[in-house]
Amino acid sequence: MKTLLLNADMGESFGPWVMGLDHEVMPYVDLANVACGFHASDPDVIRMTVRLAKRHGVTVGAHPAYPDMVGFGRRSMACSAEEVENLVLYQIGALAGVCRAEGLEVGYVKPHGALYNDMMRDTEILDAVMRALVAFDARLPLMVMATRDPSAQRELAARHGVTLWFEAFADRAYDGEGRLVSRREWGAVHHDPEVIVGQAQRIALGDALIANDGSELVLAADTLCVHGDNPESIAAIKAIRAAFNELARTS
Amino acid sequence: MKTLLLNADMGESFGPWVMGLDHEVMPYVDLANVACGFHASDPDVIRMTVRLAKRHGVTVGAHPAYPDMVGFGRRSMACSAEEVENLVLYQIGALAGVCRAEGLEVGYVKPHGALYNDMMRDTEILDAVMRALVAFDARLPLMVMATRDPSAQRELAARHGVTLWFEAFADRAYDGEGRLVSRREWGAVHHDPEVIVGQAQRIALGDALIANDGSELVLAADTLCVHGDNPESIAAIKAIRAAFNELARTS
Amino acid sequence: MKTLLLNADMGESFGPWVMGLDHEVMPYVDLANVACGFHASDPDVIRMTVRLAKRHGVTVGAHPAYPDMVGFGRRSMACSAEEVENLVLYQIGALAGVCRAEGLEVGYVKPHGALYNDMMRDTEILDAVMRALVAFDARLPLMVMATRDPSAQRELAARHGVTLWFEAFADRAYDGEGRLVSRREWGAVHHDPEVIVGQAQRIALGDALIANDGSELVLAADTLCVHGDNPESIAAIKAIRAAFNELARTS
Amino acid sequence: MKTLLLNADMGESFGPWVMGLDHEVMPYVDLANVACGFHASDPDVIRMTVRLAKRHGVTVGAHPAYPDMVGFGRRSMACSAEEVENLVLYQIGALAGVCRAEGLEVGYVKPHGALYNDMMRDTEILDAVMRALVAFDARLPLMVMATRDPSAQRELAARHGVTLWFEAFADRAYDGEGRLVSRREWGAVHHDPEVIVGQAQRIALGDALIANDGSELVLAADTLCVHGDNPESIAAIKAIRAAFNELARTS
Repeated sequence: MKTLLLNADMGESFGPWVMGLDHEVMPYVDLANVACGFHASDPDVIRMTVRLAKRHGVTVGAHPAYPDMVGFGRRSMACSAEEVENLVLYQIGALAGVCRAEGLEVGYVKPHGALYNDMMRDTEILDAVMRALVAFDARLPLMVMATRDPSAQRELAARHGVTLWFEAFADRAYDGEGRLVSRREWGAVHHDPEVIVGQAQRIALGDALIANDGSELVLAADTLCVHGDNPESIAAIKAIRAAFNELARTS
Repeated sequence: MKTLLLNADMGESFGPWVMGLDHEVMPYVDLANVACGFHASDPDVIRMTVRLAKRHGVTVGAHPAYPDMVGFGRRSMACSAEEVENLVLYQIGALAGVCRAEGLEVGYVKPHGALYNDMMRDTEILDAVMRALVAFDARLPLMVMATRDPSAQRELAARHGVTLWFEAFADRAYDGEGRLVSRREWGAVHHDPEVIVGQAQRIALGDALIANDGSELVLAADTLCVHGDNPESIAAIKAIRAAFNELARTS
Repeated sequence: MKTLLLNADMGESFGPWVMGLDHEVMPYVDLANVACGFHASDPDVIRMTVRLAKRHGVTVGAHPAYPDMVGFGRRSMACSAEEVENLVLYQIGALAGVCRAEGLEVGYVKPHGALYNDMMRDTEILDAVMRALVAFDARLPLMVMATRDPSAQRELAARHGVTLWFEAFADRAYDGEGRLVSRREWGAVHHDPEVIVGQAQRIALGDALIANDGSELVLAADTLCVHGDNPESIAAIKAIRAAFNELARTS
Repeated sequence: MKTLLLNADMGESFGPWVMGLDHEVMPYVDLANVACGFHASDPDVIRMTVRLAKRHGVTVGAHPAYPDMVGFGRRSMACSAEEVENLVLYQIGALAGVCRAEGLEVGYVKPHGALYNDMMRDTEILDAVMRALVAFDARLPLMVMATRDPSAQRELAARHGVTLWFEAFADRAYDGEGRLVSRREWGAVHHDPEVIVGQAQRIALGDALIANDGSELVLAADTLCVHGDNPESIAAIKAIRAAFNELARTS
């Protein structure tokens, strides 16, 4: 069995506004996707989040986004590839500066929200993200979404010499292409803890999921995305962690 | 004679708005104080400015500021020392990220505008700036203003192990304390090129200036701040550079 | 007995970040100080807040602030008087536009945070706020803090023809000048509901409070500021409302 | 002959950054599209621009945009229709507040940049803009682009009871649909003053232009958009104004 790392978005507070239960999530994840000040976070929040990650031995990843605070980086913006390259570079650098102050380094990059979605459907955007990453540090893995056919991402990554980390979701339904079912559709999000833990285990074991068109879907994933917004999601994270520990013990 | 480095603010354009004649200034200066996106600049402007500095072999310095784009960082803000520390750290990091993409490193730090003024009059702010600098890289010099009595700055710098670069101005009148005369007062800014070059030479030679209270003022300066906003100021930069070259040749 | 209106800050959410229990507070207050997009709020939040106020027959007031989202308008900024005038005017107008869409009008102006404090201690800032208010609509009352000696505010208001609404606080201790005791000091904030309701009643009845220097303090107040951040504060609002209803019944 | 009003974008400076030769353009236009602080402008710039318009008897129009200062509102953003409605409303209100201080009223609405383009191709966005306009003041005309077939815009405007002002361009080439040829294509922008004035005259007289596919194109326009970025464009504005005066005199 492959060890599936748990990643979660962190440091999404902003000024006086708090978001996320970072202190409760941090002990249970391996990777913290830290907002860099464009869709959330600010220098103080970043500093606190990096310190929290350090205390728990969690790897800090850059979570760069479009410059859209009020829209939380969830609205696609028609940025040029060059603009994307530079704004990703700036955000990685800013986070790296704070990490350096805490004796840490940025460990990987995971674009946020609309930038993540745009990079998955538009090779030009993905190329721009990779250029930024390579320009900063070519050894940094880039987190992308595990789908049925990751060949486009793999090809571009090979050209840039970039390591990809594929991520899957335990609490979301997939369509036949291996993409997430839109939240607007019925059944898109799993709420039953047993279903969530079961899907996490199948992904960890390399077993097939059943997509919403009934087809079997095997996702080759390196990491699992979890969320820490409320007590229910914290409970799910703990249950997944316990299940993974059990899998590791028995394998 | 001491070699006096020329420094100028650069990369102060923002989005579609252009400021400064960076292409005309860069060939004549040693140090480029590059805005980091809080009072001016954006990721694209920073990238272009760093490339321009690289082409001319100019050292890139971080020019961090209060988060006040519309006020251009010129309005003092009642930030806490901790907020100052973190926003300076974030800005150094962001610029360092872009520098890294161009194979450069940030060479020094010079706070901008109101943050610069506040740090000169408030030891707590200066301490916060130094903490940020040391946390990022203790070898980075911090540029501060040369005054009649730099003991407060020297003492704090010694405690942090920070190198200070003192800067003087060739186009500004000084008061008896060695502070700049406010722009609101008559005679605060020199416009006559001969006066400007003359003041630059006296500072370089360690000769006394005459302060506006008639007293003699010797400024121990490492660098001279020049501006590149208009053709007259470009001409002044060239004249100062020529005068310094002549001094170097004959000394 | 004078009827003391209850006012509360509202519409302080921003993008994805929620602040305040506006839906629980609105039924119990008379005046909603609605953030205008400079320290909090955004066009969507403003719209929702104005609709909520309308539903409960609550008067909407403009709550303009310094342009400092990450600092929540709590950090004093060295804005010029002209800048203050224009940014207050802009914010009143923006809120008035949304009110107009809902068939309402802005009913008063209460500056927020650091701008409120600065206006209370600096007549030039207060003058700028009044200029903005008069330029928009001279009939709008301006909310200022009730202190022992309101003569400076009264004088300036008379010159501008501005109506003042003085506000007092039920949950804060006062010093001998009738200013709020700093939150950093012990006993600055009352937590005991009985103490809070008692102070509210004394203010409503025109009875003296005991300042923290032991002196008697009579505050001539038109409105009482309440907060709706958490269940305890909601309970306090309801208790004050009940006490006021009882006073009105028995007087 | 129909009187074709001249409109120009104004108030696009921001903080310390100046854009546009507003003082030179204002005397020659009828309509000033004033930026409202989301893609350009700030409260001080708006105030100055409104005053300048007043001095020259020019009608002030709201020029609302997506919230994207660094991108100057030129990048399409995936805002929801409701978000568009509220951000347009907020911006009209803010400008109206400043106008009120100067004894003026907002005279019309012309969305800016990407929002303008999106509204022309997406009826849902156009509907949201119209909802904002009607909610503020149903008598305000909405400026949209004159194309070969304006039926979609006319139909929606009729449903909302909104007056449309169609605008044409004298310095741009048109395609067969009556849309502007992309700036990336050769011949998209006219630079020859005679060509520009000639196209302005033909539009004013209702004569056909020749589109870039060779077809004849008659644009039913109410206003002509001019630009005042540089001396050449100022000269073009003056030449168009002179030509229109001559047409008016001889008709």
